[in-house]
Order: sequence, then structure tokens, then C-alpha cells
Amino acid sequence: MKLVIGNKNYSSWSLRPWLAMSVAGIAFEEDLVPLDQPDTRTRLLARSPAAKVPILIDGDVTVWESLAILEYLAERFPDAGLWPADPAARAHARAISSEMHAGFSALRSACPMNLRKRFGWRDRGAEVTRDVARVQQLWSDCRRRFGHDGPFLFGDFTAADAMYAPVVARFDGYSIPVDEEAGAYMAAVMDLPAFRAWKAAGIVEPWVLDIDEVDEPAIAEAR
Amino acid sequence: MKLVIGNKNYSSWSLRPWLAMSVAGIAFEEDLVPLDQPDTRTRLLARSPAAKVPILIDGDVTVWESLAILEYLAERFPDAGLWPADPAARAHARAISSEMHAGFSALRSACPMNLRKRFGWRDRGAEVTRDVARVQQLWSDCRRRFGHDGPFLFGDFTAADAMYAPVVARFDGYSIPVDEEAGAYMAAVMDLPAFRAWKAAGIVEPWVLDIDEVDEPAIAEAR
Ligand SMILES: N[C@@H](CCC(=O)N[C@@H](CS)C(=O)NCC(=O)O)C(=O)O
Ligand SMILES: N[C@@H](CCC(=O)N[C@@H](CS)C(=O)NCC(=O)O)C(=O)O
Repeated sequence: MKLVIGNKNYSSWSLRPWLAMSVAGIAFEEDLVPLDQPDTRTRLLARSPAAKVPILIDGDVTVWESLAILEYLAERFPDAGLWPADPAARAHARAISSEMHAGFSALRSACPMNLRKRFGWRDRGAEVTRDVARVQQLWSDCRRRFGHDGPFLFGDFTAADAMYAPVVARFDGYSIPVDEEAGAYMAAVMDLPAFRAWKAAGIVEPWVLDIDEVDEPAIAEAR
Repeated sequence: MKLVIGNKNYSSWSLRPWLAMSVAGIAFEEDLVPLDQPDTRTRLLARSPAAKVPILIDGDVTVWESLAILEYLAERFPDAGLWPADPAARAHARAISSEMHAGFSALRSACPMNLRKRFGWRDRGAEVTRDVARVQQLWSDCRRRFGHDGPFLFGDFTAADAMYAPVVARFDGYSIPVDEEAGAYMAAVMDLPAFRAWKAAGIVEPWVLDIDEVDEPAIAEAR
């Protein structure tokens, strides 16, 4: 199985299936295509008609879109626990994963994932504030209803945590104030060995992509 | 089972599960909450924390997000054929459904679904053109690889067709030129008795929502 990903420092969508597969112990080969280079589109088109990462290649089957990849993996590895076992929890996990997949565009465009930098908090407008509030509300709701047996949204790590991992990275990197409950959840995600490994690799990448760099001074920079 | 939907004339996301359930013969009660009214948010919040339609309520389980609802229904009614039976086709169906769920934002904002009006073709910019080309490419690719046994993307009607039904309505309503293959597919979707019933109900709704009305004269209006 091969997972095509973008730059680890920036590619929030790529992080999702990479993290899920790593945490679940699903073996895969990694194929990193640096984004925003002259040959990026050609290289991506050779792998998938949608020309976007992530892309999972499993023999004859090519799956693109992070959420579709997670669904594919959940079916292919039923014992990996990618979705919660309880049907009501699973329905809830899919709802919040879809909400992430199609939503929070204000947060996503104001605070692009950029693992090697930390920025100070600033008010980034009402829509970002609303996105941040909704994310915290839904994390809290999951933790209270389904998260009693572990530190993640549904207790054990699931695909829903993979979907929100880049949001965790954004809240952290842009110093967004969160309540204690959200802070504890974020720490659990950022402490995952797989998350640490991804971040360490992203930090030392050579590429700097203007499109993902916000126009403000970083308060700290990891090298 | 109850499906909460928005206005049939405008609510493209609501159309998706409504159409899938109707075509699959899954019985449900309909709860229409008109959008953009003073009490809309209160009424939606009473039904789902995300305050958006569609929402499926099945006893204790509340599922929001059109794609998550389709996944829930596919699990709950395994014989309804909501996803293709073949794993490779199913993976492909999920990839294009996710691509729709998170993408084509230029097309979606330039051409909001508005079933009671038909607009003339005009160039709506490079991004809309790109979205239209990609949609036609992916429809064609599905039809050629998986669609031999019927008129839909995977032969028989699946959740992927439900996801693209509002795109069909937009291509039709904004007179977007399509190739013959796409035209035949669109006709199959628009000829579904369930699609016709939804549209007929939408056309006679009393509400006109400024946010979904483009600022150009309609070339035809259904009443
Ligand atoms: N909804 C898609 C989004 C994928 C996406 O937008 N990927 C970006 C990078 S994170 C990409 O590949 N862009 C193409 C490019 O930069 O050429 C998913 O969930 O996988
Ligand atoms: N990604 C969501 C989108 C849902 C959505 O945006 N719904 C709109 C109407 S089509 C809505 O409920 N808006 C809330 C409002 O207008 O108050 C889905 O797939 O269900």
C-alpha cells in the first residue's frame, strides 16, 4: 500500500490518513510529492485524476480524498478500530468528520497549518471565532458522550481524531485560547508518537510555500 | 425515521439524502425548516448542534452532514444498495462523493441551486470552468469504468448520484454546455420520479431567498 502525501510541514489533508494508518499500525510506503513546485501537478495527475494529495494506492485501487481514504481503510482493516464500534458513536464520528471535511473554511484559510512556526494569538475575525467555538463545542460533546475510556474524542483514537489533528495543530500553532478540556485533548493528539514523527519530519523540510505562510511575524520557530 | 430538510427549491444539501432515501424506498417522515427566516437557527439548533440541514433523526441517533447521513443509511439498510457492491467501485464512489462534499466551491457559489429558474449560459470565470470540466471528467470516468449496467454513475443509482444530483440541477438551471455523455446522465437523474417530485414541490414554495438568487434575469421561470 502506498500513500501519496504533500509536504509534512503544510499538508493538513495528508496528515489525516498518514496519522490514522500510523496509529493503527497499518503498514504503508510513503510517496511525498512537494506541493507548489513546477512539476507538482504533473506528478499528482500521474497518480490521481483529482491531482490532490492525499492519495492511497492499493494495488489496482486508487482512492483520493482524505475522508474516502479513511472509509476505505476502515473497511479493509476492520480490526484496526478506525471507526467506533458502537453504531451511534460511529454515526456521530462520521458526522463530525464530514463537518470537518466540508467546513471550518474561515479557520482553515486564516490559519494554514505550518508546523515549524508558532504565532501569537490575534483576533482573526468573527467567522474564525465561530469556527473555533464550534470545534471546541463538538470536541467537548464527543468527549462527554463517548470519550470516557481514553483521551481521544471517542476514547480510543479513531478516524475522527485523524480528521481533527490538523485543527489541533492550528489551534496550537496560532496560540488560539482553548478551555482546559480542549487543551487536554490537544495534548493527547500532539503526544502521539506518530504525530511527533510527522511534525519532526515537517520541520526540517527544505520547502517554504508562500501560499501557506501568513503575513505576520512568528513568535517562535522550530528548526 | 425523520429527515429534517431546508427549502426544496434551494437546499442542495437536503436534496442528497432525501433523494437517496426516496429512490432506495426507505420510509421517512419529512420535517421542512425554511432557511433564512428569523427562527431558522433556533429551530435547527433544537434538532442538531451544527444547526444545518440535512439532519437525520433515527430514534436516539441524530446524524448531520449529508455524506455522514448517506453512510449511516448504507449501514442501516445494507440491502438498499446505497454504495456499489464491488469494493473498488465503492472506494471510487466514496472518493467522488467526498470530492463533491468538500469541493467545487466556485461552481457552488456562482450557481446556487434554484429549481424554479433557468438562466442563460455565461462565462462565470476560470474557476467555475475548471469545476465544470472536472465534474464532467469524473462522471465520464465513472460511467466508462463502472456504469455499464445502467444510466447512473455506477450503473444503478447510488449515494454518489445523490451527491451529484444538485450539480445536475445547477448544470441544467444555468444552461452549462455539457457533452452528450454528461447530458444523458443528467437526463437520467432528472427523470427520476423522486427528483421530479422534489422539484415540483420546490417550485411552488412561497419563500424567495435573496442569498440564493443570482443578480441576472432568468430566461425561464417555472411556477
Ligand atoms: N478534500 C481533499 C483536499 C485535498 C487537498 O486540497 N490537497 C491539497 C494539499 S493539502 C493539494 O493536493 N493541492 C494540490 C496542489 O497544491 O497542487 C481531501 O480531503 O483530501
Ligand atoms: N456540509 C453540510 C452542509 C450543510 C449546509 O450548509 N446546509 C445549509 C443549507 S443547504 C444550512 O443548513 N444552512 C443553515 C442556515 O441557512 O441557517 C452537509 O453536507 O450537510
